[in-house]
This record gives sequence, C-alpha cells and structure tokens, in this order.
Amino acid sequence: MKVKAAIATGQLQPLVIDEVDLDGPREGEVLIEIKSAGLCHTDQMLIDGSRDWPDYPVILGHEGAGIVREVGPGVDRLTPGDAVIPLAMPECGECPPCRSDKSNLCDHYFKPNPRKPLSWKGRPVASFISLGTFAQFVTVRAFQVARIRDDAPLDQVCCMGCAGITGIGAALNTAKVAPGSSVAVFGLGGIGLNVIDGARLAGAGTIIGIDTNPDKQGPARKAGMTHFLDARDYQGDSVVEAIHKITGGGADYAFECVGHPVLAQQAVDSTRMGWGMAVMLGIMPGAVTDTIPIRPRSVQAGRWVTGSYLGNVKSLSQFPQLVDWYVDGKLTQDNLISHRIGLEQINEGFDLLKSGQAGRVVIDF
Amino acid sequence: MKVKAAIATGQLQPLVIDEVDLDGPREGEVLIEIKSAGLCHTDQMLIDGSRDWPDYPVILGHEGAGIVREVGPGVDRLTPGDAVIPLAMPECGECPPCRSDKSNLCDHYFKPNPRKPLSWKGRPVASFISLGTFAQFVTVRAFQVARIRDDAPLDQVCCMGCAGITGIGAALNTAKVAPGSSVAVFGLGGIGLNVIDGARLAGAGTIIGIDTNPDKQGPARKAGMTHFLDARDYQGDSVVEAIHKITGGGADYAFECVGHPVLAQQAVDSTRMGWGMAVMLGIMPGAVTDTIPIRPRSVQAGRWVTGSYLGNVKSLSQFPQLVDWYVDGKLTQDNLISHRIGLEQINEGFDLLKSGQAGRVVIDF
Repeated sequence: MKVKAAIATGQLQPLVIDEVDLDGPREGEVLIEIKSAGLCHTDQMLIDGSRDWPDYPVILGHEGAGIVREVGPGVDRLTPGDAVIPLAMPECGECPPCRSDKSNLCDHYFKPNPRKPLSWKGRPVASFISLGTFAQFVTVRAFQVARIRDDAPLDQVCCMGCAGITGIGAALNTAKVAPGSSVAVFGLGGIGLNVIDGARLAGAGTIIGIDTNPDKQGPARKAGMTHFLDARDYQGDSVVEAIHKITGGGADYAFECVGHPVLAQQAVDSTRMGWGMAVMLGIMPGAVTDTIPIRPRSVQAGRWVTGSYLGNVKSLSQFPQLVDWYVDGKLTQDNLISHRIGLEQINEGFDLLKSGQAGRVVIDF
Repeated sequence: MKVKAAIATGQLQPLVIDEVDLDGPREGEVLIEIKSAGLCHTDQMLIDGSRDWPDYPVILGHEGAGIVREVGPGVDRLTPGDAVIPLAMPECGECPPCRSDKSNLCDHYFKPNPRKPLSWKGRPVASFISLGTFAQFVTVRAFQVARIRDDAPLDQVCCMGCAGITGIGAALNTAKVAPGSSVAVFGLGGIGLNVIDGARLAGAGTIIGIDTNPDKQGPARKAGMTHFLDARDYQGDSVVEAIHKITGGGADYAFECVGHPVLAQQAVDSTRMGWGMAVMLGIMPGAVTDTIPIRPRSVQAGRWVTGSYLGNVKSLSQFPQLVDWYVDGKLTQDNLISHRIGLEQINEGFDLLKSGQAGRVVIDF
C-alpha cells in the first residue's frame, strides 16, 4: 500500500515528505494505522548529525499510538480494531531478561527486524528501531506492540511509549522513589516532565527541577515539581550545593534527562551520601566514546548510579498499566504536550524541539 | 603512659619505631591494649606519597584487635578485659545514618576526635582516622570500638575491622550477592579475598578472581574462588570478554578491589546488562581529582554502580556478627594472612605489601 511518510535521507538534510510503499504484515507482524506520533530527541540526533546511523534513507519516529488494521499469521494476541502503542523495546517473553523480573531488555531489542517492509522509489527504506512512526501506517513485529484500553485518547497517550515509559518507569521501576523522599530532575524535556509525573505519583515530598528555560516551570509544576532552579544562575557545581541545601544533605534520587556528562556528574553528587541514587536517562551523543566522569568517593560513600531504557518497564505486560493510570487521571500526559502539528510541519517541529522552547511536539495524522 | 609505636614523620620517610606518650581515656573514650594489627594499603598511601595527609607526624594503623584496659567516664558499654576491635567508622547511634537502616556512614566519621591523646618528644602526634593501631596501646572514642566475643583469636580477627568488614560486607550488605549468582573480583589483596569469602558464604555459584600475581590463587581458592584470570594474559578489555564468556553474558556482580580507574570501568562492563552490579572498593590515589570513566550505555543498560566504606556494615551493632561467623568456622580469615611480623619489621612489612607478593601482613605485639 502507499502511505505518506517523512523520510530522512541523510544527516543534516531536512526530512522529505513523500509517499512510500509499505508491505503488509507477514508471520508475527501487524499493520498499524498511526493516529498520533511524538517527536523525540533521539530521532533528532539522526537528523542533526550528533549520532551516527549506518542506514539512510530511514523513516524515523518511535513514539506513536494507533489502531491495528491487519494481523499476520501467528498473531493471536492482537485483533484489527485494537488500540495499540508500538514500542522500541520488544517483549518476546522467552529470552532470559523476559523470563526474569529484573530487566525489560528483551534480547530481540538487539536484533532488529531483519526485513524491511518499506520501500521508496523502488529502494528499501529502513525503519528506526524497527518502528518508524513518522508514517500513516507501519508494519511491525507484534511482540513490540502493546495493546492499550480502547478509551485511551490516542492523541494524548502517543508519547507514552517512549518519553512516558522512560520517565515514569525510571521513577517507579528503576529508582522505586519512596514516599516523602526528595528528587532532583536535570532537564525538563519530555523525559524530565515524565520523571516528575512518576515521582509525584510515588509520593515524593520534594521535587526539584533544573533547566535553562524558566518557561518550562509551568508544565513541570503541574506535573508535581515543588522547586525550580534556573541552571543559568549557577556556575560550576554550585547547583549541586543548592540541591544539598534544599534537601538538607542531598536528594534521595537524581535523574539526568539531558544527556550531558557534566550534568551526569552533578546528578550523582547532588544525591545524599549513604543511599542517594542517580539515574542516567539522557542519551549522550557519543554514547560509546564519551564517558560519565564519576568521582570514586561519590559512589564509595554509598551512592548508587544506574540507568534504564524505557524505564525498565516490560512493554507488553507492564506498560499498559501506565496508560490505565493516565486514563484514570493519575498522570498528566496532556499537560506535557506543548505543540501539535501535521506531518508536513515535521521539520519545523524538530526546530522547535531543538530550540529548547517546546515541551513535547506531536504529529496528528 | 609510655608506649612503643611506629611514627610516620612525612611522605617517603620510613616509619620510626620509638616510645610515645599516651594520655589515658577521657569522657567517652577507652584505652585498648593492641594485641595484633594489620597493614593496609590505605596506610601505605600516606607513606609512599600517593595520598596527601595534612598532619605529620602521625601514628598510622587502623586495623587491630585488643583488650580494653581502662574506660573513661560515661562509657557503660565496655569494661576492662573486654575483647574488642576498634574501627575507622564510628556508630554514634544518634545521627541520621545511624538511625537509618540504609547506611553505616555515621556523621562522626567526618568529625575526627578533636583531641590528640598522643605526643612524641613533647609534640602532639595525630592518630590516623582517630585510631593509630601501630602502637602497643591506643586511646580511642568508645563509639568506634566493637565488643567481640571473648573466644575470638585476636591474632586472626585483627584484620576484620577493615579488610574483613569491607570485603565481606560489600558482598553481603552492599551487593547482597544472591545464591547461585556469578561474581568477578578484581584484585586478590586483603579486600578481594574477603569479598570472595563473603560471596562464598552468600552462596555464589561462580567466583572469578583477577590478579597479576598467580601466587594469590592459593588463598583465593581456599576462600571460594572457582576461576582465576591472570590479568597479564589479557590486553585492553579482553578480560571483560573473558568474564562474559565464563558467565554466559556477564557477571551478576563485580568488585573493584585495587583502586584503578581502568579496572573500575572493566568491572562495570564485565557485569551483565539488565541487572549487573559493580561495587567500587579500592581507594584510588587521586580520590578527589581522578574519576571513574563510565560509559553511559553501560549504566543505561540497567547496570548498577555503587561502593561502600567498611561494607556498609554498622560497626557496633552489626560487625560483631562477622567475628562470630569466623569463630563458628564460616569464614576463612586465617587463610588470608600471609605474613606475621613484629612492630620493628613494619617497614619491611610495607615493602612486602607494596610488592604485591603478600596477602595480609600482621603485626603481633
């Protein structure tokens, strides 16, 4: 079938809006009509050249919500008409991490779908993380598609499969934020706001947001932020001291949601000696070559440093509960979306995201 | 009173054996006759210049076991004749960490005893970490003195207050090593051997020791090591690959017991994605300025990096159980001591330690 999509043809090139050919679902796959899709910094890194990608052209996009339109052979779990969210992280149910209750890192995450259901001008086109939600329809493996409740508003929950699960999951699953505790959130973008949402839901008493843009205070306070630090007011590590002062000795938890080694170090040091935990969420441009410079004494004094992909939430068996919580009024996803655009405005949408002025930017198909 | 002691007069100076004047116990203090004391790399760093120390002359030594000979006013918990181990970490019982079950880092650890009970040639002498066990007698604060059972052999348990508690506690308290799990131990010195002892006690299934000295295999295997990797056989990160191969995907836990940033990074990467935990124990010479270079993806893939001082074991309320375990035959401390010397041989003892040829070196008074 012919579907409209945004195609990335190479680094530093604007995305091209054009029709592509999409193959229907084969064994274990489903066809989804995407209703809304979120723009994420991880997509942007493949456009602005800050992350290498071996396989252009590629359809980016890995956040979205839609309706199942067709299921391939062997797919019993999903039916045409189902409301769904496709996720980057599969849950095959059979590999060691899937069988363990400790990790969501399904072995299939590291084995992308070998076949390419998309082609453009007769040439195969890659799908980012085997998804590619910047298209009207996608054909994806069923084990990375979560069934969500039918009354979930797809235009609001469309970012929950990446920013939502990553931030909320990091607070609830990775850090297991305790009631009454203190939390510092470095960066109030899509992930940071969701961390705040999750920390508030967990009952945190103090939630400190740190950002260079004071306009982000509005949605952050609605999500549960209690204190705001304008990062431009702090030189060197003085932001760490400010957090220690507010929390009386250091935050119980800190979340790095930007992807910067210096902020990562500050996040660690802003936590309380003895049991503070720093959770690394932001994707650093040089994820393989860059390193987080952690002071030995910071961890030897009983701090914990960890991180997670997609909040260590299992995509099929655990993620739908987050959507339930949103529909039941326990989370504030709608508050986090700042801009809605059509597919044709996608390049302007990424400019907005890059400027640091936007919260979440969402495409409605 | 006059007591014989080993005095550090400055960096790169041999210790001087001489008589010093020791003041008896005041309010909250006790006088202990040291029976045996262990030599530790942390002492050595103040001799060989790899760590700054502001206050020479100083009596080093922070491992030892002895008998209480006198108690000052206000000390009800201890009585002359008690078998005791003085520890670097106090347990005042009143500060936030002492009242919490999460941390052993008593606030008093960071406030050394302000008074100096020792003097030499009429000049005050510092006691390392408010202890200074390289002396026949010490006057120390009672809240850093653990009462142990009377039948504990002091010449064997004398290293349990530092290397023992640090290694055994790291395995049992910090990492909470699970039965059947896999463990990698970088460095088979005093701490590494005790990590192995603790991991075996916890029921670990695979315990891999990594060292440049194959002679350390003997005591390590007696403590519970199941595999040995001679670090000299591995270039770059190939030791990480070897650990992944033995464990089928990475160790559940890794312990850095040397104090080297490269080993710290290897320890992290040698653990299993999804839940592996790396525990930093070795004291790095530039503990403030050096950093552990952690790859963002290593932690974002669900690993944990932490560390502890003295195994996160509370000195008075939890540590004596470790001594009980040794006396009851559950730990192998005696196996870990390789050399016994008199106080007069202390400089030769440190040479032995520095050469990497010794396990634990112990002074008998």
